[in-house]
Amino acid sequence: MASSHSTLERNLAESVRSFHAALPGGVSEVLARVEGLLAEVAYGASERLVEPTLQALTVGGKRLRPILMILSAQMGEPEEEALLVASATVEVLHAATLVHDDVVDKAESRRGQPTTVANYGREIAVATGDYLFSEAFNGLAKIEDPRLVRTFAESAMGLAAGELEQYRSSGGQVEVEAYLEHIRMKTAGLFRAACVAGGTLGGLSLRQIDALSTYGQALGLAFQMSDDVMDLIGKPGLMGKGVGTDLAEGTVTLPIIFALKEGDAAVIRRVLETPNPTPELLEAGIEAVLATNAIKRTEAWASGKVEAAIEGLTLLPDRAERVVLEAIASEVVGRHA
Amino acid sequence: MASSHSTLERNLAESVRSFHAALPGGVSEVLARVEGLLAEVAYGASERLVEPTLQALTVGGKRLRPILMILSAQMGEPEEEALLVASATVEVLHAATLVHDDVVDKAESRRGQPTTVANYGREIAVATGDYLFSEAFNGLAKIEDPRLVRTFAESAMGLAAGELEQYRSSGGQVEVEAYLEHIRMKTAGLFRAACVAGGTLGGLSLRQIDALSTYGQALGLAFQMSDDVMDLIGKPGLMGKGVGTDLAEGTVTLPIIFALKEGDAAVIRRVLETPNPTPELLEAGIEAVLATNAIKRTEAWASGKVEAAIEGLTLLPDRAERVVLEAIASEVVGRHA
Repeated sequence: MASSHSTLERNLAESVRSFHAALPGGVSEVLARVEGLLAEVAYGASERLVEPTLQALTVGGKRLRPILMILSAQMGEPEEEALLVASATVEVLHAATLVHDDVVDKAESRRGQPTTVANYGREIAVATGDYLFSEAFNGLAKIEDPRLVRTFAESAMGLAAGELEQYRSSGGQVEVEAYLEHIRMKTAGLFRAACVAGGTLGGLSLRQIDALSTYGQALGLAFQMSDDVMDLIGKPGLMGKGVGTDLAEGTVTLPIIFALKEGDAAVIRRVLETPNPTPELLEAGIEAVLATNAIKRTEAWASGKVEAAIEGLTLLPDRAERVVLEAIASEVVGRHA
Repeated sequence: MASSHSTLERNLAESVRSFHAALPGGVSEVLARVEGLLAEVAYGASERLVEPTLQALTVGGKRLRPILMILSAQMGEPEEEALLVASATVEVLHAATLVHDDVVDKAESRRGQPTTVANYGREIAVATGDYLFSEAFNGLAKIEDPRLVRTFAESAMGLAAGELEQYRSSGGQVEVEAYLEHIRMKTAGLFRAACVAGGTLGGLSLRQIDALSTYGQALGLAFQMSDDVMDLIGKPGLMGKGVGTDLAEGTVTLPIIFALKEGDAAVIRRVLETPNPTPELLEAGIEAVLATNAIKRTEAWASGKVEAAIEGLTLLPDRAERVVLEAIASEVVGRHA
């Protein structure tokens, strides 16, 4: 879970890129302009924050949340400038929380690159995150739609609360409900906000926006569950096991919860409770998880969420954008097939 | 400057309290309800954030910014609920930046109490600040006035940028212009936002809101300059010198800039550049500053800002609230008389 937005995001985004050819005309175009806005945000920072902000906003980010927002919006008739600003804003808010997460976790790398805190130190990383938070709301101020401000403010509160619950669960006893509550705040909230904001900007009906909300939340949950699985079994298409970052950092994810209940709990718990476990101990922990049905059970949960996500979409217009949203959802679990 | 909101705020607020008897009827009443809202914000946090949030919001905060907002608003006819929420919001935003400032500075105490980071560690302090940031914008979402969202978003961006400039100036060569730019973002911006938001909520004319903007900004600058002086000469009414926190932390404030130009620059620079200077070295540094006209010159600058602040108020209705705003401004420099 600590690695959440790293490996999975890269893989998913690669497949998102492969969707690009199939994307309805306007999406790539809007996305290109979002990139321009993100660069403007970075160059608008005070001198010392330009480089760290640029890095936080551009290195390896695959724009999944803006893509969800644009697809959702384009099922209706969005005002383009507002959609642009809102799409940039969801990515800025996402980047803000990643930068602060890494300060909290003292994380060294993310998306294969050194983190802001590793590169520039705590002072700059905290200020960069605060600048990004402020910029997110500055973007919302430009849109002048109270519904959007509310949507983003709510998800931002969840993100902040989620930062802490992650810390709290480290090494301790975590039940499924607590895990779900955590990833609902930490990951699913912003997916949901992206879809709801998109539907709102597109002028969709309340029922349709509700359907997008269901989709976004379920997609976010499935996304996080899949990421937690990949941390243990490795990337699809590659031989070998995962790196076990979550086990090593004492973060109790859904597959680990399942494995603790039915497998060699003593070994797994030892890994979770050992700061900086040796490669041998970590390997033993991964083996202990893989010896159970934990991966299968987690994948089944993720598939259930994906079905819920796709189910939600039936209320929406039968358009190219909807097909892409369905494909994105299938991709989250499909990779493991 | 590092100590900015500590000593001065306490003293100023004590005199603000002495104003309370003279406050126009509605102010104390609104202020009491603001306290209730702030407590609600804390109790609305996720379990582990309740206590740190409560502490950040209640320990020693004297509500100067809400008071400025309420006074500004009540010169017109504000909608009471909106004023309540906005007044709580300005304090929440202020608290958010203080909590993160202390993470950046690794500060041990503030307002005579251990800081959030000292009490609870970096993880909780970062999450607490992020929660408070999110809550601030959640408050704004409730008000549904795009002008307020913009006012606060702008000042939040200045606050984030200001965190860093403070860090940047540490120990280095700082010119008057850079100092002014820093305190404009770091301190004056939120004073200004409080007054502008108040005037907006009160339905004042654009010219009157502009006058409040001038007042708020000038007051904030004077406030910070006075605080920087007090760090060197101590609190009014008490014998002895100040504690020299800024010198010790390598923060170059206005009196220090002046002293470097006309005094024993070698000694002052040695203190600024020594991490954790000995009491003797720090004492020598304070003496070197006090041997110059630096304090007088800084006080003269602060007086000039206060005059500008009061001058700005002449465009406003001649009401009890205006008299209190004038009195608050005079108090900022009057303490040294």
